[in-house]
Amino acid sequence: DAEPVLGGGPGGACRARRLYVSFREVGWHRWVIAPRGFLANYCQGQCALPVALSGSGGPPALNHAVLRALMHAAAPGAADLPCCVPARLSPISVLFFDNSDNVVLRQYEDMVVDECGCR
Amino acid sequence: DAEPVLGGGPGGACRARRLYVSFREVGWHRWVIAPRGFLANYCQGQCALPVALSGSGGPPALNHAVLRALMHAAAPGAADLPCCVPARLSPISVLFFDNSDNVVLRQYEDMVVDECGCR
Repeated sequence: DAEPVLGGGPGGACRARRLYVSFREVGWHRWVIAPRGFLANYCQGQCALPVALSGSGGPPALNHAVLRALMHAAAPGAADLPCCVPARLSPISVLFFDNSDNVVLRQYEDMVVDECGCR
Repeated sequence: DAEPVLGGGPGGACRARRLYVSFREVGWHRWVIAPRGFLANYCQGQCALPVALSGSGGPPALNHAVLRALMHAAAPGAADLPCCVPARLSPISVLFFDNSDNVVLRQYEDMVVDECGCR
């Protein structure tokens, strides 16, 4: 998959940001053989209009999210803006020791964020 | 569909909250004939562990969301908590005047939040 549009400051429109996660950080290094970590990425950014409509070229926003962005524009106190969250994800394969110390290779779904959207 | 678990204070775990939206509020009353509004509901609440795992009985959380909740627990500054967002939605039918003043009945997808989840 194409590299997500990464980099840039924390602000700005809702989009994918680069985030490398090492399994040591979450204490999984004791049972995960490989990989040592992976590019999980994460979503961050504003879901105000008009971004909430298209999610910066990504998947179309939920009608509900558009409605909330409209409500927020009409009366900011009336509704929070939609949240910038993963909209398209990919799996990774992990080699690990199971509880009986067998070596197992398994694919974990929804581990890598490819694209973000406003929900 | 079953009424979402509504009511209760703004805090607490991620779940659906009641929200009636009148089309007048978003300026759609000029072209929408019916309904005048509908129960759109919205999602609010914490996505910390263990809620992030099951989303209070709702759909299972994304593996990516569980990973982020683990990272947040290990080092709060390292990652934001996942966001509480709509996970299951329903459509509504709307009767409206189109640009040529014809009366049109159309179903709009993803307008009512039935269930929330952590993403």
